[in-house]
Formats: sequence, C-alpha cells, structure tokens
Amino acid sequence: MLYLVPSPIGNLADITYRAVEVLKQVDLILAEDTRTTGVLLNKYQIQKPISPYHQHNEHKVVHHLVEQLGNGKRIALLTDAGPEDLCERNE
Amino acid sequence: MLYLVPSPIGNLADITYRAVEVLKQVDLILAEDTRTTGVLLNKYQIQKPISPYHQHNEHKVVHHLVEQLGNGKRIALLTDAGPEDLCERNE
Repeated sequence: MLYLVPSPIGNLADITYRAVEVLKQVDLILAEDTRTTGVLLNKYQIQKPISPYHQHNEHKVVHHLVEQLGNGKRIALLTDAGPEDLCERNE
Repeated sequence: MLYLVPSPIGNLADITYRAVEVLKQVDLILAEDTRTTGVLLNKYQIQKPISPYHQHNEHKVVHHLVEQLGNGKRIALLTDAGPEDLCERNE
C-alpha cells in the first residue's frame, strides 16, 4: 500500500491526525528532503526508516519500491518541499 | 481574537494538530451544528462552551460576539457543515 501524505508548510502543527497515524503505521517513509522530514518525525516521535525520493533518484529506485509494495510493504510518500517545488517549476 | 477553524469532513482524524490546539485554548466555540461539533470535541477531549452560529441566528448574536472579542475573549468559529452549505448555495 502506498500512502501519499502531504506535510505541513511553515508550521509543523499544520498536519492532520490521520497523516501522523499513517506515518506511524508504515514500514518506510519516502522523503524529498530527509532533513526536514526528520524534524517533523522527531516532533511526533515517529521512528521509521526514511529513504530519499526526489526527481534526481526516482528513476533509479522506483522499481525496487514497486517490488516492495507488491510484497505487501506499506510505504508513505511524504512531500515536504512545497516552496522549493514552486521555484523549480518557475525555472 | 477570532479563529476560523475548518473541521474535518468524513473522517474525524482529518483535522490538524494546530486546529485542535486552538480549540483547546479558546473561551468559546461557535458551531454551525452543535451536535456534530460535540462528536468532534468529544473525540479530542475538548470541553469548552459551544454556541450555535449559523445563517439563521448570526444577525441576532453577532453584536454580542463582537463585544466579547473586544473584551479580549478568544472565540473559534468551527465550520462543520460543508455538504449542507453546498446544498444551500445551490438553492
């Protein structure tokens, strides 16, 4: 199962209870920026494996991830770089 | 201070931590539907005075509320009737 989890922008408390529940249940969290995601997970005392997943590595790792999903792994994709995304879109 | 707090539609866990923090700090919660709001507040163990506030009574109570805000009261307006609102808008 793949969960798409939007993360807060600006205020770490702008995340829903359901998003935190999902992050606590998955086997792996994919993060655009593992540092900022680490801050978020730390605040909510979530200890899960984190892997980087972004436009520079997605083509390399996606097959392995699909395989894991096929084996029943629960993975959350946490998008945390809203403003950065916007900047890249404007380039 | 007046806080506008969007409430979850469909899943009570679709509310942010900040929204719950605000609801725990205010002096009064204004609710479109006090019954559904009661269910939400109960889930998050929030015990605060609730007053009905909707299109059928807003003109009667708004002056008193403004007065309370002027006196430093903290009030949250919790909108919880999304679908109902849409129906009314279509009439």
